[in-house]
Amino acid sequence: MAMNRRSFLGAASAALALTPLAASAKTPKMPAKWDRTVDFLVIGTGFAGLGSALEAHMLGIKNVLVLDKMPFPGGNSVINGGAVAAAGTDMQQKAGIKDSADLLYSDILRAGGGLAHKELARVIADNSLENYYWLRDKIGVKFKAVYLHGGHSVKRSHACQENSGAGFILPMLAKCKEFGIPVETKTYVEELIQNGAGRVVGVKVRKGYRFGKPDSGKVQYIRSKKGVVIAAGGFAQNVTMRMSHDPRLTAEFGSTNHPGATGDLIQQAQFLGANTIQMDWIQLGPWTSPDEQGFGLAPLFVEPLVGYAPMIDPATAKRFVKETGNRKVRADAIVAIGHPVIMFANEKSVMNQVVSKNMTPEQFKHACEANVIRKFSTLRDIAAFYNVDYQALMAENDKFNGFMKAKKDPDYGCMFFDDSLPNEEGKGPFYVVRLWPRVHHCMGGLEINNKAQVLDARHNPIAGLYAAGESTGGVHGAVRLGTVAVADCIIMGRTAARTAAAERQSA
Amino acid sequence: MAMNRRSFLGAASAALALTPLAASAKTPKMPAKWDRTVDFLVIGTGFAGLGSALEAHMLGIKNVLVLDKMPFPGGNSVINGGAVAAAGTDMQQKAGIKDSADLLYSDILRAGGGLAHKELARVIADNSLENYYWLRDKIGVKFKAVYLHGGHSVKRSHACQENSGAGFILPMLAKCKEFGIPVETKTYVEELIQNGAGRVVGVKVRKGYRFGKPDSGKVQYIRSKKGVVIAAGGFAQNVTMRMSHDPRLTAEFGSTNHPGATGDLIQQAQFLGANTIQMDWIQLGPWTSPDEQGFGLAPLFVEPLVGYAPMIDPATAKRFVKETGNRKVRADAIVAIGHPVIMFANEKSVMNQVVSKNMTPEQFKHACEANVIRKFSTLRDIAAFYNVDYQALMAENDKFNGFMKAKKDPDYGCMFFDDSLPNEEGKGPFYVVRLWPRVHHCMGGLEINNKAQVLDARHNPIAGLYAAGESTGGVHGAVRLGTVAVADCIIMGRTAARTAAAERQSA
Repeated sequence: MAMNRRSFLGAASAALALTPLAASAKTPKMPAKWDRTVDFLVIGTGFAGLGSALEAHMLGIKNVLVLDKMPFPGGNSVINGGAVAAAGTDMQQKAGIKDSADLLYSDILRAGGGLAHKELARVIADNSLENYYWLRDKIGVKFKAVYLHGGHSVKRSHACQENSGAGFILPMLAKCKEFGIPVETKTYVEELIQNGAGRVVGVKVRKGYRFGKPDSGKVQYIRSKKGVVIAAGGFAQNVTMRMSHDPRLTAEFGSTNHPGATGDLIQQAQFLGANTIQMDWIQLGPWTSPDEQGFGLAPLFVEPLVGYAPMIDPATAKRFVKETGNRKVRADAIVAIGHPVIMFANEKSVMNQVVSKNMTPEQFKHACEANVIRKFSTLRDIAAFYNVDYQALMAENDKFNGFMKAKKDPDYGCMFFDDSLPNEEGKGPFYVVRLWPRVHHCMGGLEINNKAQVLDARHNPIAGLYAAGESTGGVHGAVRLGTVAVADCIIMGRTAARTAAAERQSA
Repeated sequence: MAMNRRSFLGAASAALALTPLAASAKTPKMPAKWDRTVDFLVIGTGFAGLGSALEAHMLGIKNVLVLDKMPFPGGNSVINGGAVAAAGTDMQQKAGIKDSADLLYSDILRAGGGLAHKELARVIADNSLENYYWLRDKIGVKFKAVYLHGGHSVKRSHACQENSGAGFILPMLAKCKEFGIPVETKTYVEELIQNGAGRVVGVKVRKGYRFGKPDSGKVQYIRSKKGVVIAAGGFAQNVTMRMSHDPRLTAEFGSTNHPGATGDLIQQAQFLGANTIQMDWIQLGPWTSPDEQGFGLAPLFVEPLVGYAPMIDPATAKRFVKETGNRKVRADAIVAIGHPVIMFANEKSVMNQVVSKNMTPEQFKHACEANVIRKFSTLRDIAAFYNVDYQALMAENDKFNGFMKAKKDPDYGCMFFDDSLPNEEGKGPFYVVRLWPRVHHCMGGLEINNKAQVLDARHNPIAGLYAAGESTGGVHGAVRLGTVAVADCIIMGRTAARTAAAERQSA
């Protein structure tokens, strides 16, 4: 049980004086002997963890250690899209884009629907520019383009050459190697350890841990003088945990996340009295297919086709949502229906909007061969294959075609584009995907302050404990903007290192 | 730090064997000597607390104790509307109403927007009938009518004669007296105390506590053999706590709650590793006036006038929301505007719909004298007083009148009723209220199971710790139905007593 200052003083002055207290047997345990001692310990090898470790080294902290329970480093970050939000960069200036920290800040708050913590959004906004140059000049990330992501006021998503989070993670790992920072995988942090004053001073780990085998690995105790950073991601893969916050998210729902996103460290911190916030804002991706695993290829097909292709509930042969609506609107609508829906587009739309633009021809071919995307000559064939009433489907399709031509959708307010091409019977072939949402991002997590310190249930910092990235809540509020999470992870991870470096006291 | 079974066994078998562990100085403290010992300890004197204490006594648990930090018992319950949801009662049968536990269950789930915990909703639905008879026959609550509350499929809200929660609380307190259950006010529970096995075995209290004076009162340690029930309400009055979950809810927002709704016991339980869920679903009442305190009289005026009177933003002279929308829709819209709005109705509507129906003539008179409701002869006077552009107001008012006559609102979809009466210039007088939402109900709180046991961060019960009512989350999900909270409090409070009575082990 973590005490706040008042109750600690109260215990010391009043209670202890009045009644001698016997220590409970069930307490945070300090090992009599530590197996290792480091200066700064980071849990997690994604953007947040590596950002924190590298910044700590650059600030002169010796003996930084990074741990990860999985066999390979990179967590969810390495399978991320590979772009970071930044405001006011040289790339923006060259492209004639006017941007500022204030504009980024107001975009984050607007998307957050009132739930974003202003002081955290401010940290991201104020540091995004410096963070971009740090990544480029100090880490060696190679940026190739700045583009517009939905919800941002201007083009400020800076894509790396690799079009993948690996374009950030690999140079970060290379820097760790260069700086002599050990990145130890297969190392599960089973307990956070507090000293008598409530400061987190180390961890109990299992070295040689095999993911999914709780008792695997050898127990070691690692002391950290300047604290511990939780940068271990979210809990999208922990069905019990996510169902406690949102009971809809049963095991029936897959996740786009890597399997290690199980929220253990959030729970560990809760056992020290840490506060969690906004845990039920769990973002579903509406663009995943039940015909493949993980993030998959379907999202690459679906996203450029919104506004060109109707989404249909096979049971009713009706549309049910604004196809150009945001992720939450679409995912909630599919979940409410309770079974997968279909989306279909004619070949010309697919070739114009998708192939060689958002999917490589190889990806498209692979998705077709794997039956994630299916090809049909006629709408009648689609109806037959997906068990949709053909007459009803034709009626709904005719209506949708009329809306496309008029560029106006009185039913759901879908937006159509100038080159929208109706799906007309006889003008096939058509391509179809089935859609069923997957758990994609946990908006909520540990409450932190603008120094990346983890806060307890009374909102006081837990000494020696920091957190950054998807393990935390409040930065984005209800809805995060694309590529701001990458900025969040790296900036807050680096902030944790700065706070630790600035702290006089060490354990 | 509470350990789960696995980590406890791990510590006992593996870690302890390998490395001798020194107990930390910062631990839950057991007093060397308890000042008092009881069999069952209940914190809170509202529906949940008194329900739990009375049930415990009826199940044969001797020496039950009820504590409250406030000077008077009853918490928020005593200022509640005084009706409880129950399905299948004799009153319903007499009125020809068909109802069932299953129908109540599905109503709760529908209102909860997917966030209600099914196993908790099931407990409420399955016990509502027995609970109604228990209240009537064992406690002496006098029911007078069954009515329809918004969101329920049938009339199942059973109102007591007093039209107030006091109609439940006073007979419950009388029963406590009859049974010899002490109800001790001015007693603040400052710490929950766990024994070496992690079981909650007692509390540290301050006797003679004065609310708002943290160090007041004399420290005592009270042991409880069969556990502790947290029935201490929500956190609507704790600005820091509610802002951590919903940053919009600054000190600028008042609350309809009694001042003691400060969430202390939720926080105490978090320090034992308890999980909290859905904490950011904090319900605002959209019908409160900035011209009075607390719940006030304005809601009694506003609710029967939706569908008869427009709500206007004085800054734009425009409507901004569906007046017949639910609490959340309306409150969010006013908060987004950022300043109080006005609602006005002509005298005939007010006399037809409000006075002697939802407000007594005395209440109406008092609200007018206190300038909570203001009377104006003309719409021009309203515009002048509230600094609204008169021409713009007349244009918007004419449009609204047209909608009323057509019984259709293309702008916001407000519902109108057959006897709606337009507000026309020259056909005054008019009555006006200003509206600014107040924090009304915390949907979220401690995670419990269907035995009312408090769950830790890994969803395992914390031995000896129970919770019921507004201190808990998950029963209602995103939106609670009126009068179901009363059933929830009493049924879950009683459930906690049943679980404790059935437990073999005691401390």
